[in-house]
Amino acid sequence: MATLKDVAAESGLAVSTVSRILNNRGYISEQARQSVNDAIKKLNYQPNEVARSMHRKNTNMIGLIVPHIQHPYFAEVIDYIEHYAHERGYRVLLYNSMGMLEKEREYIEMCARYRVAGIIICTGGISLEGFQELGIPIVGFERYVDKGTATIACDNILGGQLAANCLIDKGCRHLMHIGDIIGDRDMPADDRRVGFQQICEERGIEYKNIWLERSCYNQIYYQDVILEAIKKYPETDGIFTNSDAIAAQVLQVCRGLEIDVPGRLKVVGFDDVLLASLTTPSITTIHQPIEEMAECAVRILDEAVSEKVVPIQTVLPVELVEREST
Amino acid sequence: MATLKDVAAESGLAVSTVSRILNNRGYISEQARQSVNDAIKKLNYQPNEVARSMHRKNTNMIGLIVPHIQHPYFAEVIDYIEHYAHERGYRVLLYNSMGMLEKEREYIEMCARYRVAGIIICTGGISLEGFQELGIPIVGFERYVDKGTATIACDNILGGQLAANCLIDKGCRHLMHIGDIIGDRDMPADDRRVGFQQICEERGIEYKNIWLERSCYNQIYYQDVILEAIKKYPETDGIFTNSDAIAAQVLQVCRGLEIDVPGRLKVVGFDDVLLASLTTPSITTIHQPIEEMAECAVRILDEAVSEKVVPIQTVLPVELVEREST
Repeated sequence: MATLKDVAAESGLAVSTVSRILNNRGYISEQARQSVNDAIKKLNYQPNEVARSMHRKNTNMIGLIVPHIQHPYFAEVIDYIEHYAHERGYRVLLYNSMGMLEKEREYIEMCARYRVAGIIICTGGISLEGFQELGIPIVGFERYVDKGTATIACDNILGGQLAANCLIDKGCRHLMHIGDIIGDRDMPADDRRVGFQQICEERGIEYKNIWLERSCYNQIYYQDVILEAIKKYPETDGIFTNSDAIAAQVLQVCRGLEIDVPGRLKVVGFDDVLLASLTTPSITTIHQPIEEMAECAVRILDEAVSEKVVPIQTVLPVELVEREST
Repeated sequence: MATLKDVAAESGLAVSTVSRILNNRGYISEQARQSVNDAIKKLNYQPNEVARSMHRKNTNMIGLIVPHIQHPYFAEVIDYIEHYAHERGYRVLLYNSMGMLEKEREYIEMCARYRVAGIIICTGGISLEGFQELGIPIVGFERYVDKGTATIACDNILGGQLAANCLIDKGCRHLMHIGDIIGDRDMPADDRRVGFQQICEERGIEYKNIWLERSCYNQIYYQDVILEAIKKYPETDGIFTNSDAIAAQVLQVCRGLEIDVPGRLKVVGFDDVLLASLTTPSITTIHQPIEEMAECAVRILDEAVSEKVVPIQTVLPVELVEREST
């Protein structure tokens, strides 16, 4: 790759002059500037961002730590965070922790060694308290507030309420909620059940609660447990799931049991990722404003990097998107 | 964040001694080593990878350029590349070009400025010839070979052949292939149709070819065109699509038209991403060995970084995965 020296030789100027031109320092004749530009073009010279970073406190990279990349929800989160990070001049260093605490710890420290400007963390597992002394702004995405961090979440309680009201309004009287948990971790997503339960109690409708226990964070298939639950409670006529990926599997199980959706049983998912509009029937779901949440996370991180005061918690609204499954 | 100086002060040693310990240079007493380790732990000191990179020709980052992050195929590609890159000690800088040539050019140059060790590029658009002089190894993923690059692809022709044989063996006599194209770009994925056509001609089965023209790379929804095609050729009893995302939409259109799948019409997709097993009915598809392709891409890039001779083209086999749609 061409170096600063090559550019100097090609343009017939001193290295220090070329450096001044590149950094816009001091008086430079139009002619010198032109010959440097020509040399840069001819040699396809690329200034060294690593060297530039040495003179700054940090790089303009953001560390993005997710527990899973392929999962439709995180794929969408990554997509939007990458987009808005680039808009603000940041590059994204991507880390997949696969939900393992020791990996999350290792990746946060690795981010520090790479002198990232900030970290966005989408995994629920690790406590962030110990990392304050690194002095790197950390923004949590759909996780509870940890001391010294800012978090972005959607209104999970409202989401559960909207789902319950939708199913009850459409005539369902025997409801079921299917959520997934990982060990004993507290996740904001658990609030979806809380909102769902509130409405069921208010409106006097019975409901069953099924927890899918994930053996690992990136487990995705639960057909067996779903099948068992529907067989155990055959009167069920409305199911609310904690994600569209689970809702898609409810549809599969129903087809296997020859239960008509939405005729005999109605299904509401959560997230509104691509998958929800690609299944047959397509899935009625709670739209999580992932794009707006991503934009907000990057903006708050950017402000924290500039040492502005930022909100420690930002909650965005959700809404019901009706499709064929209800 | 704690600096080298802080570690020196804490351990009561000279900065140069601490530096020698960290870099394992020269004789160091066990006691000095211990006191530095204690200081590092106490201060949570993170060595500066940016400064370290200055002494090397490049960083240990890989630039990964994709045209789309949310698309189920690319989400899976990113997942595995991140995994195998980390295994080999690389970090992944993620770029989404959204299929725009000017962005692809900009991102390759940006990778150069960040002194990445190498680049993996999954977009079909840009010609890579002009980038040879950057002296950075570039590995193409499911794209045609460009001068000076190595590419990894799956056996797309075999995939098309397997799909045609599967549909014909199951009794289909009026076949249709649905593929997607972007402008006039040549993509290896187009070979899927070539293999499909070969078998149809060999076995004397008629087939129609439908092209979905994407207005932009990340367009995903095509229900209208699919509906029109199935209405225009109502005798169609077997459809092969270039991706599972398209196959999922064929299922939706069929449900709308009350065409039973697989009873009246059978569907074979391509890729074998998560989506294929989450639809109802689940999708028979051509399994692209994305994990093995990702591992291979990272390994070849790693070898190219070490200036070994690497194959310019590596083609991995595909196989048919039968599910409910046939």
